[in-house]
Amino acid sequence: MKGFKLHLYTGLIHYPVYNRNSQKIASSITTLDIHDLARLARTYSVEGLFIVTPLEDQQEIAAQIVRHWLTGYGAYYNKDRKKAIDLVAIVPSLEQVVAAVKKNEGQTPLIIATDAKGWEQRSLSYSDARKIIEEDRVVLLLFGTAWGLHDELLETVDYVLDPIPGRNGYNHLSVRAAAAIIMDRLAGRSF
Amino acid sequence: MKGFKLHLYTGLIHYPVYNRNSQKIASSITTLDIHDLARLARTYSVEGLFIVTPLEDQQEIAAQIVRHWLTGYGAYYNKDRKKAIDLVAIVPSLEQVVAAVKKNEGQTPLIIATDAKGWEQRSLSYSDARKIIEEDRVVLLLFGTAWGLHDELLETVDYVLDPIPGRNGYNHLSVRAAAAIIMDRLAGRSF
Repeated sequence: MKGFKLHLYTGLIHYPVYNRNSQKIASSITTLDIHDLARLARTYSVEGLFIVTPLEDQQEIAAQIVRHWLTGYGAYYNKDRKKAIDLVAIVPSLEQVVAAVKKNEGQTPLIIATDAKGWEQRSLSYSDARKIIEEDRVVLLLFGTAWGLHDELLETVDYVLDPIPGRNGYNHLSVRAAAAIIMDRLAGRSF
Repeated sequence: MKGFKLHLYTGLIHYPVYNRNSQKIASSITTLDIHDLARLARTYSVEGLFIVTPLEDQQEIAAQIVRHWLTGYGAYYNKDRKKAIDLVAIVPSLEQVVAAVKKNEGQTPLIIATDAKGWEQRSLSYSDARKIIEEDRVVLLLFGTAWGLHDELLETVDYVLDPIPGRNGYNHLSVRAAAAIIMDRLAGRSF
């Protein structure tokens, strides 16, 4: 598997997501989410990580984080972090993520969303998702912030990945931890 | 596997660890590490998460985080988080972690450390580690902060788990992401 090229992209969605009262919101940028997901993207040979928020002030916060590590003191301080942050793009909407991937790959990506609740229709197991990714398909994998991706987005995607099973029904991982587990299940080397 | 009881404990070590210049340091508490590792511990039926630091001011910072979620506003605000933070104990040294586990289980735990560099002697594969955990052994799994666990600690443990393989040799995950992947590989349900 070493060197086997994937056509895999990831997106961290800040809108539309739920808040704790099941209302539709745009969530705030969390610095460590960008760092952790960028390093995951680099580890698992992902082609690009899109930070998706329509809020201009939040786009600017994300851009400052990226600039620090690409051209500021961070680029000197930690070259390994730079290699990860190089993969990050900040975009206002899912439509523009899809357009950017299409421009890069020459085809529209298959969109797989992740959701802690699970989804009866268009659900996708980890083994089937792994097969799709290894079959040379262009795939965009979406992660939600706050209390998860809004149904209005989930209704537009091709598949919704099964929730992380855990051992006991507790299912309240951070997006950082969930993304790590999912990336390893879908693109990691076997045991 | 559902309901199958493990005797698994985790520890997040802040001393002795390396800084970026390979010097021995005590690292600072990172709030999100405690949150993410506590939620991972709850998800994978871990019996306890030990936050290990000899520095009294850092112990107090960790204790404040725990109190907020157990008895402060956080306990009201987010009951799911409380269930995770319930697993956290703050202790000054690895020796005291071992003593606490022994008191709880009636036997000394097998200690498995994790390390991004890997370790030739006493290395342990994911499948062998999983077998040990499922064999009803009392196991303490250690994660390092900063630039990783110091050799003087690694030399005292029973095993060092193989590094996370990734796809391309890049191996600079956050401890949050690494712990998520390792917990899922060792205690998660199969695909």
